[in-house]
Amino acid sequence: MTTPSTIASAGVPAEQERRETALTDRVLRSFDGCRDPRLREVMRSLTRHLHGFLRETRLTEEEWAAAIAFLTAAGHITDARRQEFILLSDVLGASMQTITINNEADGDATEATVFGPFFVENSPEAPIGGDIAFGAAGEPCLVDGTVTDTAGRPVPGARIEVWEADEHGRYDVQYDDERTAARAHLFTDDDGRYSFWGITPTPYPIPHDGPVGELLAAVGRSPMRASHLHFMVTAEGCRRLVTHIFVRGDELLDKDSVFGVRESLVKDFERQPAGTPTPDGRSVDGAWSRARFDIVLAPARA
Amino acid sequence: MTTPSTIASAGVPAEQERRETALTDRVLRSFDGCRDPRLREVMRSLTRHLHGFLRETRLTEEEWAAAIAFLTAAGHITDARRQEFILLSDVLGASMQTITINNEADGDATEATVFGPFFVENSPEAPIGGDIAFGAAGEPCLVDGTVTDTAGRPVPGARIEVWEADEHGRYDVQYDDERTAARAHLFTDDDGRYSFWGITPTPYPIPHDGPVGELLAAVGRSPMRASHLHFMVTAEGCRRLVTHIFVRGDELLDKDSVFGVRESLVKDFERQPAGTPTPDGRSVDGAWSRARFDIVLAPARA
Repeated sequence: MTTPSTIASAGVPAEQERRETALTDRVLRSFDGCRDPRLREVMRSLTRHLHGFLRETRLTEEEWAAAIAFLTAAGHITDARRQEFILLSDVLGASMQTITINNEADGDATEATVFGPFFVENSPEAPIGGDIAFGAAGEPCLVDGTVTDTAGRPVPGARIEVWEADEHGRYDVQYDDERTAARAHLFTDDDGRYSFWGITPTPYPIPHDGPVGELLAAVGRSPMRASHLHFMVTAEGCRRLVTHIFVRGDELLDKDSVFGVRESLVKDFERQPAGTPTPDGRSVDGAWSRARFDIVLAPARA
Repeated sequence: MTTPSTIASAGVPAEQERRETALTDRVLRSFDGCRDPRLREVMRSLTRHLHGFLRETRLTEEEWAAAIAFLTAAGHITDARRQEFILLSDVLGASMQTITINNEADGDATEATVFGPFFVENSPEAPIGGDIAFGAAGEPCLVDGTVTDTAGRPVPGARIEVWEADEHGRYDVQYDDERTAARAHLFTDDDGRYSFWGITPTPYPIPHDGPVGELLAAVGRSPMRASHLHFMVTAEGCRRLVTHIFVRGDELLDKDSVFGVRESLVKDFERQPAGTPTPDGRSVDGAWSRARFDIVLAPARA
């Protein structure tokens, strides 16, 4: 169905096709003088994909102007406490794809997921079996497991950072007071074991009162994140692991707004009715839950 | 050179490849519920190219963070007078590609180029042969030509807007006073002819004291624009034409920072030594130049 003057794939006439590809080539060549080979590679790939996007969609001048206005609004809402460009990267799956690329599959090593904006340095230390809720509202949850390497050997002394939102869907840093709650770090014992009491994760929305929220609404997507509990695990000789665990049965698992869910990270949070004795003798009012998370660390990169 | 667990094209192991493509597919499917088919198409194409860029470059987490910081800085320098995102689009050739796509080749219709940020509504009207410099500093330049349609018929009464920088590389709106200079509009006569006195174009840099300037420096590119004179031509039944003419011999022609140059828009600006009589009897002190620009308008889109 082609004619000599028509490119079949896109229906773009040959002379028009020539002009568009010549322009892209000119932009690609403009990076020839870049002395940093990695920067040159990145800019050339960016150029190819940016132009590919424009040409494939036949982006109109009005749509281009809307994109400029969107980026401008994202820039203006961004400040020390709000990062709309990270949200944009998150909802386009770019954050998760970057993490996937940089945490390459390695045997049965635990999969990584998004870091998120709510990690805080210098969290309090908790003993094994300690309570990391520090008064955060929510149903108590006992989490335990082991940290091993990909050869199956226990990793003693691994540092485990945990942090999570309370049952109102807010992290401690989202309150105006100076509270520290639902975050701590602890270390595995000589057998690579750990356990702590936190709170059962509940869902919450990403900030959606800005341009990214408008975009989600326009495309019919929810800003909600699936319920999760953050982990960051570091140990000598091992690749740093940043991940979450998710709650099996959560109806948001297949529509997490930032694409953080991986099947291997979905865990059973077994509900225990009020009055169920705890394994460590801790006294709990009302129902609680229990989850197991065995962590496997990849070796550090050479 | 492939093994069953390796994708030859990228050297990415099969399980890793599966994870990355599964994530991209998940993001693509997240737009399935978008009720606006055009928005859905644009977001899906954006997702494919964004993820393609990340995967192709194996973007590191540090590079991702640098990109977020770049966009944040661009957002913060942008205000009512400075538009860093348009500059970014310009230096990546995205503005020019959008214009190319939206001004499809049509016979010998004059090619379009970037609009730029310096057009102003309600410019003064000049008569045919009038002076549009209004005191702007620079060597006088006589520009004349015709406006015809793609069938070769003269277009009488076409509105021609012209604007340009002065010899200091600044447009009137870049001065703090309220001057109007080196911009005007005029109309073609019954035979489609026009002429005006302006100033010989000289090169100038795009604003380069922000993140886009830093990017250009990092990749070894100049912020300079090739010397040019802006035109916008409108006439009933014709496609609006936004373009420039460039100066043959300008050493910046092949490195215009925004990729606006097209060979068909490069014109001879013939230098006339001091004392050369002008065709219209105008008295000029010193040297002047002369350029001819015959404009062909495509038919308006149906």
